Amino acid sequence: MTCNVPFDLLEAFMTDAFKAIGVPEEEAKTCANVLVMSDKRGIDSHGVGRLKPIYYDRIIKQKIQQPVTQFEIVRDMAATAVVDGHHGMGMVIGKRCMEMAIEKAHTYGLGMVVARNSTHYGFAAYYPIMACNAGMIGLTGTNARPSIAPTFGVENMLGTNPLVFGMPTDEGFPFTNDYATSIIQRGKIEQYEREGKDCPPGLVIGRDGKTKTDSAQILKELVSGEAALTPIGGIGEETGGYKGYGFATVVELLSAALQQGKFLSALSGIDESGKPQPYGLGHFFMAINIEHFCDLAAFKKTAGDILRELRASQKAPGADRIYTCGEKEHLAWLERQDKGAPIDEALQKQLIQIRDEQNLTRYRFPFEA
Amino acid sequence: MTCNVPFDLLEAFMTDAFKAIGVPEEEAKTCANVLVMSDKRGIDSHGVGRLKPIYYDRIIKQKIQQPVTQFEIVRDMAATAVVDGHHGMGMVIGKRCMEMAIEKAHTYGLGMVVARNSTHYGFAAYYPIMACNAGMIGLTGTNARPSIAPTFGVENMLGTNPLVFGMPTDEGFPFTNDYATSIIQRGKIEQYEREGKDCPPGLVIGRDGKTKTDSAQILKELVSGEAALTPIGGIGEETGGYKGYGFATVVELLSAALQQGKFLSALSGIDESGKPQPYGLGHFFMAINIEHFCDLAAFKKTAGDILRELRASQKAPGADRIYTCGEKEHLAWLERQDKGAPIDEALQKQLIQIRDEQNLTRYRFPFEA
Repeated sequence: MTCNVPFDLLEAFMTDAFKAIGVPEEEAKTCANVLVMSDKRGIDSHGVGRLKPIYYDRIIKQKIQQPVTQFEIVRDMAATAVVDGHHGMGMVIGKRCMEMAIEKAHTYGLGMVVARNSTHYGFAAYYPIMACNAGMIGLTGTNARPSIAPTFGVENMLGTNPLVFGMPTDEGFPFTNDYATSIIQRGKIEQYEREGKDCPPGLVIGRDGKTKTDSAQILKELVSGEAALTPIGGIGEETGGYKGYGFATVVELLSAALQQGKFLSALSGIDESGKPQPYGLGHFFMAINIEHFCDLAAFKKTAGDILRELRASQKAPGADRIYTCGEKEHLAWLERQDKGAPIDEALQKQLIQIRDEQNLTRYRFPFEA
Repeated sequence: MTCNVPFDLLEAFMTDAFKAIGVPEEEAKTCANVLVMSDKRGIDSHGVGRLKPIYYDRIIKQKIQQPVTQFEIVRDMAATAVVDGHHGMGMVIGKRCMEMAIEKAHTYGLGMVVARNSTHYGFAAYYPIMACNAGMIGLTGTNARPSIAPTFGVENMLGTNPLVFGMPTDEGFPFTNDYATSIIQRGKIEQYEREGKDCPPGLVIGRDGKTKTDSAQILKELVSGEAALTPIGGIGEETGGYKGYGFATVVELLSAALQQGKFLSALSGIDESGKPQPYGLGHFFMAINIEHFCDLAAFKKTAGDILRELRASQKAPGADRIYTCGEKEHLAWLERQDKGAPIDEALQKQLIQIRDEQNLTRYRFPFEA
């Protein structure tokens, strides 16, 4: 049975789990904080559920990720820098890169840092929100394992490549447009499968160029490469699929070309002999210092006014409300803050396994009778 | 009958037409160049076809745009600046803003300039292409007259708000993702109407929350506000409409809040008494100096490699080729360079009218018998 677990407990446990497998204490805290923040925002796909498959297993089983992050600044200019993460912890690399971008933006008004040889950095909005907390606009993007087919193509080529802005407002939470440039992601298809539902047409394309809707079959074929995600806008050009494909390509270019790293099919995480290899992801981070343009409070007010005007506009019949980006994540936090994160049985087993393997004996979870 | 007109003739004529209504010579050249570049790229919706309705009429008939541009630098910091265009020529404002951003990026690696009280600046990719020609990445966006409805809404609130990156490559043309954040724009619906075709479902929403497909009716109702464009991703959330809506909102925020200008419904171009008033558009321009990150030739090679790998990936059955952003515009140029721009009869009449009204007697067009 799914059980709610307090966020503090999850964060402390993840910190100790990261420490147990060699991540230095401060960096373990960063990694755990990035993951738990995703759970707090209701984005379960990028939270504690990834502790075992994406971090723990890759570090101690597949050995394709380094627990100690060598954060090498390859080039440091006025408002810009290039970093090599040497396959360390993506969240540590991401946080330090955004800190650098913010520091540069304090001085010059703008800062931009790109990273090579990184690993999965968690939910992307974490880094723009850092900028928002510093009174700045933040921007980030990352490439990822190939999964989106180009318009008129059927092969999974581009990552789900998010292009995420964070902007401070006078409301209780920032604007953050954190989503894949595909229509759907694997996690949502898994949810359809659990609910016994088909995937809506147009979201997944097969090698025959036709849409696939059988959720269980799609999940297998996304792995084998027989199916690929479609970009925002869907299959073909008529409904604007080339626009989502264009944004995914923007992110691929910004993530790889400025840092001269790997891209597209080279990001499969598999070497020529079929063995796991470091992903070698690339990210970019930008901070825009609002006070170099205008008064920060005035910016926040105008941004809030824009979002409020959108939400107050006429609703479609049957629609309760109009949302703006980041609002659902804020509502999830309000709903979850006293309850904690819902942990399903599969995830409960993973947490117990890590606890037992690493002898973190002081942890008892509420789902343990 | 549609007639091809050489680009040089169009550019010279537009320059003289702008001069005739008070635009200073160098600025008239800029305006004409922005418009003709769009025709050269095959984007007829933003070229000479806009000379009369969007510029000529607004300057001398509606008197909501100033032919002489007062380009006031309101704030100039290290890598950033804020400009007030005082309702002058959008292309002049846009070009000077991007020149400033490029100059700042020469020094600091990054530059960003935002403009208030501007007017329609032509096709957006013009400015990122300036950055590409300087060995930089360019980014621009602009707000516009409200036409997109938010997800779960039916009211036209957001402009078609493009978010346009330009990146240099080792191919004969840059990457440019220049498109609206709606699925379709008015110009394409006009084309459907001329061809006697319905608009595909999902691209336009009515006040009843249902899609509209009758092209002639849509064109009327987009004006009356009974219909609105849907964001990339379409109606509702299931096919990712909130993602296109999110990008449109990003552009609205970046265009208005940093320069403390007008936004959303205030950009209708109509005052409270129903009379035309200056639009007061906002734009943003950014330049990213590639050589502050890596070797320019290496960047261009990697960018080209990414685009070539995408184009070489497996095509859907029946698909001839896979395109990358900016490629179709380049192909249009190759096809048009010796022929000129196709000018239809309605546009021929507009050009003759301007010529005669302004006594530009030395111009004879090939469509005049």
